[in-house]
Amino acid sequence: MSPQEIAEACARAMYVDDSTSQNLGIEIAEVRPGYAKLTMRVGNELTNGHGLCHGGYIFILADSAFAYACNTYDQRTVAAGAGIEFIAPAHAGDTLEAVGEERLRAGRRGVYDIRVTNQNGELVALFRGRSATIKGTFIDSAVGAP
Amino acid sequence: MSPQEIAEACARAMYVDDSTSQNLGIEIAEVRPGYAKLTMRVGNELTNGHGLCHGGYIFILADSAFAYACNTYDQRTVAAGAGIEFIAPAHAGDTLEAVGEERLRAGRRGVYDIRVTNQNGELVALFRGRSATIKGTFIDSAVGAP
Amino acid sequence: MSPQEIAEACARAMYVDDSTSQNLGIEIAEVRPGYAKLTMRVGNELTNGHGLCHGGYIFILADSAFAYACNTYDQRTVAAGAGIEFIAPAHAGDTLEAVGEERLRAGRRGVYDIRVTNQNGELVALFRGRSATIKGTFIDSAVGAP
Amino acid sequence: MSPQEIAEACARAMYVDDSTSQNLGIEIAEVRPGYAKLTMRVGNELTNGHGLCHGGYIFILADSAFAYACNTYDQRTVAAGAGIEFIAPAHAGDTLEAVGEERLRAGRRGVYDIRVTNQNGELVALFRGRSATIKGTFIDSAVGAP
Repeated sequence: MSPQEIAEACARAMYVDDSTSQNLGIEIAEVRPGYAKLTMRVGNELTNGHGLCHGGYIFILADSAFAYACNTYDQRTVAAGAGIEFIAPAHAGDTLEAVGEERLRAGRRGVYDIRVTNQNGELVALFRGRSATIKGTFIDSAVGAP
Repeated sequence: MSPQEIAEACARAMYVDDSTSQNLGIEIAEVRPGYAKLTMRVGNELTNGHGLCHGGYIFILADSAFAYACNTYDQRTVAAGAGIEFIAPAHAGDTLEAVGEERLRAGRRGVYDIRVTNQNGELVALFRGRSATIKGTFIDSAVGAP
Repeated sequence: MSPQEIAEACARAMYVDDSTSQNLGIEIAEVRPGYAKLTMRVGNELTNGHGLCHGGYIFILADSAFAYACNTYDQRTVAAGAGIEFIAPAHAGDTLEAVGEERLRAGRRGVYDIRVTNQNGELVALFRGRSATIKGTFIDSAVGAP
Repeated sequence: MSPQEIAEACARAMYVDDSTSQNLGIEIAEVRPGYAKLTMRVGNELTNGHGLCHGGYIFILADSAFAYACNTYDQRTVAAGAGIEFIAPAHAGDTLEAVGEERLRAGRRGVYDIRVTNQNGELVALFRGRSATIKGTFIDSAVGAP
């Protein structure tokens, strides 16, 4: 398998288990090694009484882009920590896009930057995640012997 | 109204609008000026296929404790940014507690630390939030003229 | 003055007062609006007994690149906070380069990312700074009336 | 040796090599397991032309309190990353105090919070450091066989 095929197979294997993304309507637009682009439509159930998206759901979208970007090498990787800057509010009906890019991958550590923008290209949040690899793979475990 | 009465009135006014907390079963156990304690039971809908709570929901719980702690002075305050360290996983059936405490409140800025623990007192996450006050109050707007 | 001329004039005005950069041998290699590249040679005085550069000096270099990048619009801007990831050690004799780039500038707030690398292009640290504009300018105050 | 004796022996062994702290006049006021209190007088050489302490030196003081607090178990521990909030400026002639406290120590990971205050007890900065243990000890290596 090529690195691109591995990245895509990992994303497919993760998504099957990822009921949070499924429930929130988060979709994977693109994955490449060390990279992921996800989208989420801000439904009413993600907003408060004034139609503003809860910051926690913006975090979840960014955190998911982080997870898909760092899990593109068939080596299970988890979030050790993250920081987020909330820049502008998101509103009911917005479609948010989160693009995650690798800044570092060395030993068991990784650092990924995620930008969240709305459908007008306006910056909604900046997120930096720190990852740690753990034991386990996606592809071996997903492809069972007959 | 005493500072304690103001803190409690703000929390009540916020919770009415806070459909995220309501939907996730987040409950306010205690508020005091600059302080909030919230709880959340980890239902199956917050977990992935392996029974582990999605880190994003741990963030939402911590972020909510942050929001209730910094909005205890009847001055609307929003999150400017936050950092989180994920320490230990949470599992389906756990009851998590998030305690938010004020570290700084000066001018329009605030810094709050939140500890998330499970029902055994084990540390699940550490969160530090940075707040900014905006225009608006809770109590005036909630108390309508007759 | 063009934006580029303003950026360069701000950097010159700041550097005159910046005894820390002068004392540590930090030099400004390039400034553009929202951008700065600085260099620092790791002399023995910046290291411990084992020839490793103190992380605090790596922070100062990154923080300085942040300061010069965010002060390129003739509007005095200070650091509100920062995060740093230490990736690899720096050694006596290394020449470090810090490149600061703007990620956001909106209202009084800014976010800047700084990468610190060594003379071999290896990543030493990743820094994210949050800025706030304050009152005052550089160019007006530097150009005195006769 | 008791835990307290180990903590003090580690601090002594570290300080011998710590030319940065020695050069900046940073002094160790107290160490206990997971805890350190350090002081630093803001001399003119740490300030810019206006008598304000460079934020990088406030970081170094906090980072040093972090280092002494996490290295109290005779297990060499380094900084993986840190975040700092700059709250109020420090001035030439101020004496700053940094108190570092352990929030977490589990496996190879640690989290420490450091508060920097001035001689009037005013908060100057809040720092959160993330540590990682590496190979090596202080006491064994410092006590040579005859």
